[in-house]
Amino acid sequence: MNEGLIDIIEISGGITAPEGYQATGVACGIKKSGKKDLALIYSENTATGAAVFTRNLFKAAPLLLSMEKIRDNGIRAILVNSGNANSCTGEQGLADARELTAYLAEKMGIAEDEVHMSSTGVIGELLPVDKIKKGIDDLTGKISRDGSGDAAEAIMTTDTRRKEIAYSFRLPSDGTVVKVGGMAKGSGMIEPNLATMLAYITTDLAIEKALLQKALKIVADKSFNRISVDGDCSTNDSVFLLANGKAGNRLITEENGDYLAFLQVLEKVALYLAQSIVMDGEGATRFITIRIKGAGSQEEGLQIARRIANSNLVKTACFGGDPNWGRIVVALGSCNLNLEKEDIEVSINDKLLFSKEEPVYRDKGELARLMEGKYIDIEINLNKGREELEFWTSDLTYDYVKINAEYHT
Amino acid sequence: MNEGLIDIIEISGGITAPEGYQATGVACGIKKSGKKDLALIYSENTATGAAVFTRNLFKAAPLLLSMEKIRDNGIRAILVNSGNANSCTGEQGLADARELTAYLAEKMGIAEDEVHMSSTGVIGELLPVDKIKKGIDDLTGKISRDGSGDAAEAIMTTDTRRKEIAYSFRLPSDGTVVKVGGMAKGSGMIEPNLATMLAYITTDLAIEKALLQKALKIVADKSFNRISVDGDCSTNDSVFLLANGKAGNRLITEENGDYLAFLQVLEKVALYLAQSIVMDGEGATRFITIRIKGAGSQEEGLQIARRIANSNLVKTACFGGDPNWGRIVVALGSCNLNLEKEDIEVSINDKLLFSKEEPVYRDKGELARLMEGKYIDIEINLNKGREELEFWTSDLTYDYVKINAEYHT
Repeated sequence: MNEGLIDIIEISGGITAPEGYQATGVACGIKKSGKKDLALIYSENTATGAAVFTRNLFKAAPLLLSMEKIRDNGIRAILVNSGNANSCTGEQGLADARELTAYLAEKMGIAEDEVHMSSTGVIGELLPVDKIKKGIDDLTGKISRDGSGDAAEAIMTTDTRRKEIAYSFRLPSDGTVVKVGGMAKGSGMIEPNLATMLAYITTDLAIEKALLQKALKIVADKSFNRISVDGDCSTNDSVFLLANGKAGNRLITEENGDYLAFLQVLEKVALYLAQSIVMDGEGATRFITIRIKGAGSQEEGLQIARRIANSNLVKTACFGGDPNWGRIVVALGSCNLNLEKEDIEVSINDKLLFSKEEPVYRDKGELARLMEGKYIDIEINLNKGREELEFWTSDLTYDYVKINAEYHT
Repeated sequence: MNEGLIDIIEISGGITAPEGYQATGVACGIKKSGKKDLALIYSENTATGAAVFTRNLFKAAPLLLSMEKIRDNGIRAILVNSGNANSCTGEQGLADARELTAYLAEKMGIAEDEVHMSSTGVIGELLPVDKIKKGIDDLTGKISRDGSGDAAEAIMTTDTRRKEIAYSFRLPSDGTVVKVGGMAKGSGMIEPNLATMLAYITTDLAIEKALLQKALKIVADKSFNRISVDGDCSTNDSVFLLANGKAGNRLITEENGDYLAFLQVLEKVALYLAQSIVMDGEGATRFITIRIKGAGSQEEGLQIARRIANSNLVKTACFGGDPNWGRIVVALGSCNLNLEKEDIEVSINDKLLFSKEEPVYRDKGELARLMEGKYIDIEINLNKGREELEFWTSDLTYDYVKINAEYHT
């Protein structure tokens, strides 16, 4: 759908840009630094809720609680703490998450089943429940329609900047203005303890729950699931999507034009947030796009893209500014897929470097200049099928090693 | 089989320790440094030959040639060059390998089909055929029963030391003394251009070809295929095994006691070489053993071990001396296997750190002291089945990034 047709405009306000949302962030003492570490996202009415969670076998306590609550309930509020992941904390961790969401519900006079929690930070330590309760008292007194920035700050761990975005657009059916806002945390390569990625997207659209969940799944697979965070998914990765219907549109109950317009804007928000995570990578100096063309299937393309994105050889070559197509070919060839090697072409920043099993471009000076900038585009054409996709990652640097070796449990 | 029963003794002489083998290494000018870059391994009679090659889709030219020759022929000589991988060099690369092995065969008066070649070094560049021919002239004049060390030196790329070993043992059937020798190159983490691993094992045992190939496959899967070289297999990885029968034993034609004794010594040689590669890792400061116990199958155990070994989070934690069980749990949980998480136990250097989904050991001082040494043992007990295995890797350090970022194509 042409963006102009549905009048997509970037607006300010992040997760509180859509109608009916409030937020804030405070410091409650989980982080020793005294920085903000507790955020609240609140919808003035019960929002329809959708979520996707980490596929890691060891899911952190708050995720287990959310998976239990979200099936049959809407979402009214999400409490997010940084500094402690409440992961690998057993029964007590689950009880703590339950107690804190109950406390928040009681405090705000809302249904406990509609209150969720997310956590990010060190694993294997119990939450400081009393500190967080005091933080909740503080949050509930402060939330406002302007609090998006404070919330985005409070969910940061090693992020160097807040990650927020919002767009408005018009539904094609009747021109109703709808807004979608989002915030996220996570660092491109990885954060010291866990590569946790958290994202929250709000909209004032009215849409049925099953369609909302479907839209989130589709969009997450094309954004948050296409960035490389060390190959491992953390115990806490979560993406929440809330739709409170305050835009006043006719409820979307089928995959009509309005649904497709929403899907498009939702993807813009998710892509912005996912790519911001890569951009803000610890120690990262390059933003690398891996584009697979001519794949036999999305799965095949994704497997190749992921392999290249997670190759330390490719990542260090990008850090060093070396257009080393050989390392890309090695990673690709390691995939154990049924590919015709004669058909494979590798380009870097639009320059074809490898084709028909041989290098096609040998001017070393020009090759070196290919990778002088911050953005590196690696394109693989398998010339096999018609599937295409993009995947994003960052380089492997001294600072990555420093941050991850010096951080102690 | 008890080692004493078959009288296994470490001996000197590397690949020329077994009867009937000669070798040497020279500098022919492929490496700009002037260091040795061309080796010859020679058997005085035609040896029965076996080999395993990289599974990478893009196999280098010499491997394609060897795969063609080895099926129906024995092995008389192997020419090995370092400094140039003859990989991604198309038809010309294959023609060059063919020409050089033919030249060597002609020169030595042996059958061309019994001459193999291996290459390691930069990829995408054609071999300097004339230089190598002069090197062959040089090699054939110098080979001797004492040349193992020179050969082991000539196959090095970024290796900091030669990797050689040899054992003698007695066949249980009649006490015949048999010798097995080996040499290898490769660096634990990776070498600048490719993680190429080359290994050559010689024996004077008399054994049928099919059994020899079977023995090599079994042993390679437990040694060379259990070290982490960046997750990618290079275009040139090769292991050759020659058996020339000079020990004078009765030809082994079935999996009898003599076969099992040989298998045991072959495994010792292969393990020594594989672990030496990890030990000599570029920038590596730690030798990490990952032991999986209680797995449902070898495949399951291997998938988990590989995942942990290739986790940059685990590797940097080992560099930093941090017994960070959380990162191990995250990598393990990312494997997408059907595991019971309550049953999983994680130990580091024999100290149980994680069990029943929770940390079991919280004395941070003692935890830190756990990882002060060079050797780190990570043990995962899945408490599911009866399968066990070990896997070896090294840590991820500043020097790893330096070496791999500063090396230019």
